[in-house]
Amino acid sequence: MEKIRIGIVGYGNLGKGVELAVNQTSDMQVIDVFTRREGVKVANGTAKSIDKATEYKDKIDVMILCGGSANDLPVQGVKFLKDFNTVDSFDNHPDIPQYFEAMNSVGQESGKLGIISVGWDPGLFSMARLLFGAVLPNGQDYTFWGKGVSQGHSNAIRAIQGVADAKQYTIPVEQAVQRVMNGENPQLTKREKHIRDCYVVAKEGADKKEIERQIITMPSYFADYDTFVHFISEEEMNKNHGGLPHGGKVIRSGNTSQDNKHVLEFGLKLDSNSEFTASVLVAFARAIYKLAKQGNKGCTTAFDVPLGLLSDKTPSQLRKELL
Amino acid sequence: MEKIRIGIVGYGNLGKGVELAVNQTSDMQVIDVFTRREGVKVANGTAKSIDKATEYKDKIDVMILCGGSANDLPVQGVKFLKDFNTVDSFDNHPDIPQYFEAMNSVGQESGKLGIISVGWDPGLFSMARLLFGAVLPNGQDYTFWGKGVSQGHSNAIRAIQGVADAKQYTIPVEQAVQRVMNGENPQLTKREKHIRDCYVVAKEGADKKEIERQIITMPSYFADYDTFVHFISEEEMNKNHGGLPHGGKVIRSGNTSQDNKHVLEFGLKLDSNSEFTASVLVAFARAIYKLAKQGNKGCTTAFDVPLGLLSDKTPSQLRKELL
Repeated sequence: MEKIRIGIVGYGNLGKGVELAVNQTSDMQVIDVFTRREGVKVANGTAKSIDKATEYKDKIDVMILCGGSANDLPVQGVKFLKDFNTVDSFDNHPDIPQYFEAMNSVGQESGKLGIISVGWDPGLFSMARLLFGAVLPNGQDYTFWGKGVSQGHSNAIRAIQGVADAKQYTIPVEQAVQRVMNGENPQLTKREKHIRDCYVVAKEGADKKEIERQIITMPSYFADYDTFVHFISEEEMNKNHGGLPHGGKVIRSGNTSQDNKHVLEFGLKLDSNSEFTASVLVAFARAIYKLAKQGNKGCTTAFDVPLGLLSDKTPSQLRKELL
Repeated sequence: MEKIRIGIVGYGNLGKGVELAVNQTSDMQVIDVFTRREGVKVANGTAKSIDKATEYKDKIDVMILCGGSANDLPVQGVKFLKDFNTVDSFDNHPDIPQYFEAMNSVGQESGKLGIISVGWDPGLFSMARLLFGAVLPNGQDYTFWGKGVSQGHSNAIRAIQGVADAKQYTIPVEQAVQRVMNGENPQLTKREKHIRDCYVVAKEGADKKEIERQIITMPSYFADYDTFVHFISEEEMNKNHGGLPHGGKVIRSGNTSQDNKHVLEFGLKLDSNSEFTASVLVAFARAIYKLAKQGNKGCTTAFDVPLGLLSDKTPSQLRKELL
């Protein structure tokens, strides 16, 4: 069987995760990794320069874009979709409609197919919200995140004067989760849904009281939450807070009649946010390969992809083994 | 907007649930209900005879088949697919491939589209198993059912001499669920996964010890499980065991690398098995209407349906609101 030929753009945590994930499949292979720093060591050789990617246009079936949503993807998406089918995890929710339109124009013109916002949120969680809303229209959704590391919030703390390093965990309030799981359909404030737990390494001589004050009063990031600040040593940070665990739950509860209530739940508990996100990107790369082969082009999302295309099994295997 | 015109075949718990569910949508309407007993009262009039359904072939867009999998659907599916797009909840797992082939032949010939095995298992649970396996290939699946009423097991008890009525609850063993949720990937026997809890009304003068013995030693139904038998009065049965609650969980745990483990969970807690199943059928009826309009015919399953088609929202609404 010919393997699906994958290219990876970017070799941070996500790109490395994609490489790992592709190597766990039997129907896909990594052809090359493209980075800004040419010559970086990768699993099967060295990375190529991102500027030379176009030369690979006939050698790669799907390019998986592993850059960030703020600066990389808005530029790289429309650039790569000119030559390649693409998959990305664009996660800047409010900008998704605009990014979709930009990608769709390019893909319609180039004849390539791109899928955007694949990962777990947006991605699997979005799929759960859609499915739950469709099968239980008279109800209410709740999304809880964590326990997990919020990188944006960690960065916001690191930007405070006197902070050497920081890690912020978002933790769902257990009582709120229980109320939702009981089908109470509660109205919950931000504070009632999530706790923000911060581990901070202060620079020598820094004013810890002032750092704590700046954190807990920071608008939109922390002020609306119960926020806890723990000062720890650099050693403890490296030893106990080195990973990127994450996860969360989408829960919908609602009624089909006055007497009958139902609770639907989709949950993830992830040791590594980036490795799991990468694994989702790779499954969708398989689907995009098949959809592009069928003649689809432009831009698409997880909402448009039949689940069967994510699998390496045939439709009749799937019906026999999983239905 | 023209509404999607729905027909319902069968007016037991499931058919009544479909009627309720359609009435909760704004884009669909029930045109008629078809039963063996002509003249039965339904929400908007009286039921028509199932034998006259063909006369409605131009008045109904999708026929939702609400009969049982043992006797009704294998006959009704292939019959109705000659004239109508159909949706059913065929749940006899080992016979699915054969039923699919039979339905596909009819649909390819008639130009209609049928979707089979829609519900929650098979159905939503199958979708979770497929999705979880695709995004976490190196792992293991577990399905737990309950707490809920198993109708087949309840019927098996009712068939024992001296039993007036019975209700059997399947209950997941909490410790087993916890081990799976902890990512231990345990090997579990049937006995370690589920408890079978039986509520029995004995006929006057019946030998309760003998009834209990027959239940707990019944092969495949009860012998392989820890089974508990409680004798109760008819009043208590009617008061406390009148509903059809059910639910369960699909859990997959696995690794993306040696150090990083992930646990994915899809769970349902249902007050009414039949009303929720009906609600799933109705969402898939909407998708089948759209797929048939696009020219699809033959037989399909939940694995082939893009999730977006289940919703009454437009693709751009979905991207904006749910992605």
